[in-house]
Amino acid sequence: MQIAPTDRTTVRRQSQRASYERKLVDAVIDEALSCHVGFAIDGRPWVIPTIHARIDDVLYLHGAVANHMLREISGGIEACVTITLVDALVLARSAFHHSMNYRSVMVFGRATIVDDPDEKWAALHALVEHVVPGRMAEARPPSDAELRKTAVLRLPISEASAKVRTGGPIDDPEDLALPVWAGQLPLSTAYGSAVSEPDTVATVPAYVTGYRRP
Amino acid sequence: MQIAPTDRTTVRRQSQRASYERKLVDAVIDEALSCHVGFAIDGRPWVIPTIHARIDDVLYLHGAVANHMLREISGGIEACVTITLVDALVLARSAFHHSMNYRSVMVFGRATIVDDPDEKWAALHALVEHVVPGRMAEARPPSDAELRKTAVLRLPISEASAKVRTGGPIDDPEDLALPVWAGQLPLSTAYGSAVSEPDTVATVPAYVTGYRRP
Repeated sequence: MQIAPTDRTTVRRQSQRASYERKLVDAVIDEALSCHVGFAIDGRPWVIPTIHARIDDVLYLHGAVANHMLREISGGIEACVTITLVDALVLARSAFHHSMNYRSVMVFGRATIVDDPDEKWAALHALVEHVVPGRMAEARPPSDAELRKTAVLRLPISEASAKVRTGGPIDDPEDLALPVWAGQLPLSTAYGSAVSEPDTVATVPAYVTGYRRP
Repeated sequence: MQIAPTDRTTVRRQSQRASYERKLVDAVIDEALSCHVGFAIDGRPWVIPTIHARIDDVLYLHGAVANHMLREISGGIEACVTITLVDALVLARSAFHHSMNYRSVMVFGRATIVDDPDEKWAALHALVEHVVPGRMAEARPPSDAELRKTAVLRLPISEASAKVRTGGPIDDPEDLALPVWAGQLPLSTAYGSAVSEPDTVATVPAYVTGYRRP
């Protein structure tokens, strides 16, 4: 399924890297651990890092972002959520053509507070499961008091685009014979050994020892 | 050296995690491969991922960000550059107290175009060296035509703050005896094996095989 491009989501620079394919947008959102949420207050920009979760066509945010926005604004706020995965450093023979391989997504729209208790609970469930799949089967679920203390924002994934670069460097033809190494250095996220709390009575679960992103 | 907090950089949520220590701010900026640049056009937010480099008290950005901003604005633009390093997933016994360990920096200010050719050259040199230290001793330096094609922005690091979380989960006392594992899963960036271009005539340099961030 394609997302209809809008004026904001039409990629103009390196447009051959653009995609409006919903499956790709969702895959980047689901793989990334965190996002950067941008909004403007009195015309001045703020960018806050936070975690996110997707349920079907909605991106959910919570906590810090919601609180910050709530302090200033009620009734929703224009947001731009950007999610970036860096896959490789790309070294060209010329300084100018150095690049990175990446997958990024931008979602634009009006973020609004979730009031419905069922939707809020589902969003918080999804936020924990987004970071550690399997965790909500074990963790103590939020109490009513905790639910009241947590603000959740919803942003429909209706105005969004992805941008992807893959492959090696693209040098100018006249640089190809230069005695300068050219290629890619792949990057990925490594997961270390779990560090148990001194007072934890349980053993490390398989969803932690075998942790990986989708 | 401490950076004087302003209204924008005073951390209000989880303020025990805040720092205005210039050395810490610089260390996060220097370690991170990329940043997210926020700005507003007609009051609507944009967040663009890009690379950055620091020279002393100035953060430099280039290319996509500069072009995007330039399309709309001349004479500088209010920006918020946020840089985030995620160090660990933090699993508490309760869903509510799940967290992440991270180091983040926000730099606010007016980003302006670099016109001075020497400063522009130094910034582009720093941008390549930021990503791959040692690379500019080998790569073909930018030509005059390439320099003209590249826009560079400068943002003074004068209004900035850092936020850092470390350590294990902080559960409520009544949850400590729950039979739920609690602890941290450390994250780091892993560097794969270099992939040489088929037509590269040089061997993989030591600054690639031994790549690591500062």
